[in-house]
Amino acid sequence: MLKLNFKKMNGLIPVIVQDHEKGDVLMMAFMNEEAWKKTLESGKAWYYSRTREKLWLKGEKSGNIQIVREIFVDCDDDTILLKVEQVGQAACHTGYRSCFYRKLNGDLKVVGEKIFDPEEVYKEKE
Amino acid sequence: MLKLNFKKMNGLIPVIVQDHEKGDVLMMAFMNEEAWKKTLESGKAWYYSRTREKLWLKGEKSGNIQIVREIFVDCDDDTILLKVEQVGQAACHTGYRSCFYRKLNGDLKVVGEKIFDPEEVYKEKE
Repeated sequence: MLKLNFKKMNGLIPVIVQDHEKGDVLMMAFMNEEAWKKTLESGKAWYYSRTREKLWLKGEKSGNIQIVREIFVDCDDDTILLKVEQVGQAACHTGYRSCFYRKLNGDLKVVGEKIFDPEEVYKEKE
Repeated sequence: MLKLNFKKMNGLIPVIVQDHEKGDVLMMAFMNEEAWKKTLESGKAWYYSRTREKLWLKGEKSGNIQIVREIFVDCDDDTILLKVEQVGQAACHTGYRSCFYRKLNGDLKVVGEKIFDPEEVYKEKE
């Protein structure tokens, strides 16, 4: 029986999110136990936002939800790897496909693909 | 100029480690500022162990070091994606290629590839 270790990080576990087909890493986020349960129940990725201190359905504003295809658990039961179908092809709130759109090469260079304009998509955002 | 945000997690940043050719996610670990500097200087992955409370050259005991090929920084400057050449083909201390060797499918099923016998490799481990 799976028992994730939420204690190691004060109630949170890091979650790595990878595209289930292309294999590129899209983002990293955190789940608390409730986000984990909602993810399992709904088949969509739910996270816990540390800055906003609340549960968060990924894509609730942008529509770019993540449909969970596969879930892997690490050797210490304290980190999750989600393989997802990224609706809208973009995971990052900046409009890039991946949050890791900058490569360190002396300086940081933008190498990622921009998919949407965040000012357009989040225009009702407070 | 790159300035990573080590404050968000009390001096640590999460690091996702991906094979630079195959693209599979091998592990997740944490770096403090010193581990980050040593990684940049040496071209090998150094981490900070939260349980052992010390710097750690990945592979120092097993020989399975990680040669850093590419470094990506996330949109918030608080998470790193390393693309590495995994010496010895295995990243996990359990002997599996990846720490994410178990897939959730009702129960957890071992789906990963076992590369070495940890009792043999770590036999001098205290």
